Amino acid sequence: MAIQDPIGRGRTLAESLFDQLRRDGADHPGVTRDPYGPGEQRAHATIGRAARDLGLAVTRDAAANTYMTWPGRNRAAKRIVIGSHLDSVPHGGNFDGAAGVVGGLVAIDALQRAGFEPESDIVVMAIRAEESVWFEVSYIGSRAALGALPEGALAAKRRDTARPLAAHIADCGGDPAILVTGRPQLEPSSLRAYLEIHIEQAPSLVEADKPVAICTGIPGNFRFPDARIEGAYDHVGLPRRFRRDAALAGADFFVAMDRLWEDYEQRGIPMACTIGRFHTDPAAHGMTIIPGEFRFSLDVRAYDEAVLLALEDETNRIINETAHRRQVRFHLGPRARAAVGPVDHAIAASLLSGAAALGIPVIELGSPASHDAAAFAAAGVPMGMIFVRNTNGSHNPHEAMAIDDFLAATSLLGWWLESNAAISSGSPPP
Amino acid sequence: MAIQDPIGRGRTLAESLFDQLRRDGADHPGVTRDPYGPGEQRAHATIGRAARDLGLAVTRDAAANTYMTWPGRNRAAKRIVIGSHLDSVPHGGNFDGAAGVVGGLVAIDALQRAGFEPESDIVVMAIRAEESVWFEVSYIGSRAALGALPEGALAAKRRDTARPLAAHIADCGGDPAILVTGRPQLEPSSLRAYLEIHIEQAPSLVEADKPVAICTGIPGNFRFPDARIEGAYDHVGLPRRFRRDAALAGADFFVAMDRLWEDYEQRGIPMACTIGRFHTDPAAHGMTIIPGEFRFSLDVRAYDEAVLLALEDETNRIINETAHRRQVRFHLGPRARAAVGPVDHAIAASLLSGAAALGIPVIELGSPASHDAAAFAAAGVPMGMIFVRNTNGSHNPHEAMAIDDFLAATSLLGWWLESNAAISSGSPPP
Repeated sequence: MAIQDPIGRGRTLAESLFDQLRRDGADHPGVTRDPYGPGEQRAHATIGRAARDLGLAVTRDAAANTYMTWPGRNRAAKRIVIGSHLDSVPHGGNFDGAAGVVGGLVAIDALQRAGFEPESDIVVMAIRAEESVWFEVSYIGSRAALGALPEGALAAKRRDTARPLAAHIADCGGDPAILVTGRPQLEPSSLRAYLEIHIEQAPSLVEADKPVAICTGIPGNFRFPDARIEGAYDHVGLPRRFRRDAALAGADFFVAMDRLWEDYEQRGIPMACTIGRFHTDPAAHGMTIIPGEFRFSLDVRAYDEAVLLALEDETNRIINETAHRRQVRFHLGPRARAAVGPVDHAIAASLLSGAAALGIPVIELGSPASHDAAAFAAAGVPMGMIFVRNTNGSHNPHEAMAIDDFLAATSLLGWWLESNAAISSGSPPP
Repeated sequence: MAIQDPIGRGRTLAESLFDQLRRDGADHPGVTRDPYGPGEQRAHATIGRAARDLGLAVTRDAAANTYMTWPGRNRAAKRIVIGSHLDSVPHGGNFDGAAGVVGGLVAIDALQRAGFEPESDIVVMAIRAEESVWFEVSYIGSRAALGALPEGALAAKRRDTARPLAAHIADCGGDPAILVTGRPQLEPSSLRAYLEIHIEQAPSLVEADKPVAICTGIPGNFRFPDARIEGAYDHVGLPRRFRRDAALAGADFFVAMDRLWEDYEQRGIPMACTIGRFHTDPAAHGMTIIPGEFRFSLDVRAYDEAVLLALEDETNRIINETAHRRQVRFHLGPRARAAVGPVDHAIAASLLSGAAALGIPVIELGSPASHDAAAFAAAGVPMGMIFVRNTNGSHNPHEAMAIDDFLAATSLLGWWLESNAAISSGSPPP
């Protein structure tokens, strides 16, 4: 059966939820839904209320992720999870993350009204703490649920509050004592698939003039959140040959990393390199002082583990050359790593068929950004993603997703559920 | 007559004064003598007491500079000023500036004890606010004295207090209402010469293994204290071709400026380029956010006005190329300018003869840094400088001047006064 929205109910539901979320998180300019803080809490409460209105069962796990379950005929069958996160960057946009959770509810509402009854449970999962700008740990909520939090993550401090993740989780009704055991809250082998709708965070769909993209893969990354260059503070009168300018070494390093990216780009190997923090010390710098210390963060990502390994080698080579040339030392600090997230071929192929069946123009697209879906893929759960066109990028107050494009994605998700959710690869119906 | 220090009195006087100044300004690590603030005030009080002990007449002008006068036989004759500044950078060293004031007192003490009587007044001048890191205006005390403060300087705000210079001057007993008239406190035409002892702020004397250098010139500069690059904040997933990364543009700019300096160096044209502040916005930056804004300061200096003009053209060319390549905008903000300070040939030649006569090994050296002496040269006062060997650079807590090297410089200064201060080019003695 084809899902329709004749009386505009999907549009009304989506718009009212996005409006409420925007009010919940308002923090001029944009929205702030701080993970394991008041902003994210309000969003989980709003989404939970909406799910109850649709008759879904609402529960939380030890990581305070919210699960909104539409029970299937066979409760023992492998479940389908539709998820995304509700947190945002500081002063971010309203759609990054939230679109995937709202999208799950809109798709289920349409299926319910069309009289569809699922074979297995369909679970909308509102995930915690995906934005790594806060704790500088990737995929906190999803990896906590899957029993895959990295060692030491619960001690990571939120950059603004300086309080550890465990304390923040407890604040929000979670239970760090359970998480520390590493036991999964959501057993990966009990899941049939994980699907996620997300706004595109680059303008490729805008450039291609298409509403929706089918994801072909999620990049892995290596990161140095708190790297430091040690040179020597000195007077502006110091001749060039004596200088150990830490900021100039930082500049050299950044330019060399960009050249490396340009080279990979010309060779057709997808990757990205971002240096988001890049600064002299505000307590010590001055117009007539040669910078003796410089700090930066580094995020390097690619779609292939072998490429990531090669990039880390290249990065170390550039660091050694820069340190030698500028007579400085690099102290890289803690290193974080996220695995490449492969997309399930069958899910991607099915989504492409669905788009064709529904007449939705799509492109295939490697995800430029990281997503919780990668944590599910890493746990062995078959994973697929649908991207929605979005102008002005994300992680800023100006992100702009047209509701028509969003509804195209939710009907594609509904089509996939309709075509797949009656087939259980778990226990047969009683 | 030859000046001697048989009972070590010069050494004792110098050491006790430096020790007291270090206690006055102690601010771990190093010393902070904040201009027109408590740190500098204490130093002026200490130096004033020491001058009174030597029988000098102590007065202040409307800019709160301290004058310590040894009256000459002919009070109407053109005066000789021996000066330097007493302020420091935050957490700086004890000798940058203070050595020149202490040096003047030590030289006069030796001349007094040797029975010397000056023909003209010899004035030790403790100058205010030379370190431009605070108000970002060059040579405040000396230019205020000479009636050469630039337009708007009295409104410049101290970076830490955010209070205007005029208010700070009034705090310290000065009179901004007089300074605003632009009338000189110290009539340049009444001065026969200005001499300044200063620690070297680069390791050229350490490298040359000599205690003292005779200055051949002081660089002029152009500066942009508060420049800003405007790009676009965006998500880490944005492909390279769409990025408008303000920090990467800053890195490009810095590397290009360093390459420009390297080129001038190879062509044998002395200059320097310093970018002391170089940073993303701490309130907005993050590991997974492409920097949309970047700030920097720029100080470019050279010994020749024509070279400075050419360098400003080159800087603008680099800015335009960088802005174009990285799709960003440079907002340079206010521009400051200081004229090149030429050394008086007769004074330099006389100091060289003196060093030879006293057996002090010297080199000739273009000043790498700016000094109040340049303000006197710009006002038409014949000027000379003596640099003292100093390890670990300056503007940091580790600057280290050996007292023997310092005493070599004060005996050279004493030799020059002995040889020149009896000769008046002003009114003949009555």
